[in-house]
Amino acid sequence: MIKTKELSIRTQKDCEVINITDQVAHVISESDIDNGIVTIFNVGSTAGVTTTEFEPGLVNHDLKAGFERLAPQSARYEHEETWHDDNGHSHVRASFLGPSLTVPIVRGQMTLGTWQQIVLIEFDTRPRDRTVVCQVMGE
Amino acid sequence: MIKTKELSIRTQKDCEVINITDQVAHVISESDIDNGIVTIFNVGSTAGVTTTEFEPGLVNHDLKAGFERLAPQSARYEHEETWHDDNGHSHVRASFLGPSLTVPIVRGQMTLGTWQQIVLIEFDTRPRDRTVVCQVMGE
Amino acid sequence: MIKTKELSIRTQKDCEVINITDQVAHVISESDIDNGIVTIFNVGSTAGVTTTEFEPGLVNHDLKAGFERLAPQSARYEHEETWHDDNGHSHVRASFLGPSLTVPIVRGQMTLGTWQQIVLIEFDTRPRDRTVVCQVMGE
Repeated sequence: MIKTKELSIRTQKDCEVINITDQVAHVISESDIDNGIVTIFNVGSTAGVTTTEFEPGLVNHDLKAGFERLAPQSARYEHEETWHDDNGHSHVRASFLGPSLTVPIVRGQMTLGTWQQIVLIEFDTRPRDRTVVCQVMGE
Repeated sequence: MIKTKELSIRTQKDCEVINITDQVAHVISESDIDNGIVTIFNVGSTAGVTTTEFEPGLVNHDLKAGFERLAPQSARYEHEETWHDDNGHSHVRASFLGPSLTVPIVRGQMTLGTWQQIVLIEFDTRPRDRTVVCQVMGE
Repeated sequence: MIKTKELSIRTQKDCEVINITDQVAHVISESDIDNGIVTIFNVGSTAGVTTTEFEPGLVNHDLKAGFERLAPQSARYEHEETWHDDNGHSHVRASFLGPSLTVPIVRGQMTLGTWQQIVLIEFDTRPRDRTVVCQVMGE
């Protein structure tokens, strides 16, 4: 059995971390699937998905500092020189993080830890309307 | 057909890399599933899963040095200031690596390379009792 | 329903980014599966898969610069000292990026963005014959 739903998420800024756990859980509870997997997939090449403890220190500072070490906003990007934009670092960060996450479902619940939330991380430099595909597969 | 099993893994220290390939293979062999996928998912926000060649140089030194460049233990973390703990770098590393891995199963075997093992990487600063969910889905 | 196909890809050099989107789409179109997931998995421990906008600036320069920050080619690797080779950075980069990617399929199409392509990134220092497993599961 397969149920697919698109989440629509408005983002505001670079390195915004958005907790989408409740929205994913809602798709699962509506699906009548008790055991299986949910695939969470960001459509587009300047945002990604992962899990984190959703608390202000990590979400507003620490994760951003890590991404800045990997792909500093001020570095030289050929992407920016070619296209005359400012989001070369956004693409690099998104490709490193990856667009997809798979979470097992057991007895109707995702197997997340207590302090583990599913997040969309926006890397683009302007507000975006994001589509995140949630697909539940199982029995 | 879906079979789920939880692996219980005792870890000892920060950046410990633990080979869980045989335990995952055992779950598959017990499942009677010949074709499909296995999802390996770390429960919690300070460890992650990936694949690597499991040899001492990479496992005891080189991977750790890479994580140290991304999120140095000695950097300033707001997570640590808020919660008065010492594992801000652990959270950042775990979010970058990701909690989940999906491996195809063909004729009862995972499609791993000869020098490619499935590993859990502990990032927390103290010993932990980890739960890794192994879910086999297929036919 | 499950269909598996191996893609054979000849790579040329370190940090080569290869667009495999069309090959994955072809496997899906041949599978008669309309809804479900495709798992893309690199066999081996010195290459990985992700998505990116496949344009020359990112592909030939910017992604490579990011990987160089994470695991510089010139750093000291115990892997290289043990095995007398030169690909310690390749292993570290591949483990960080990860070997697997999962993309939802809806009405016969992957839910990729317009500027989002599936890529294999070679990290090894010599040409390789890569096997990428494409497994389609669904209905």
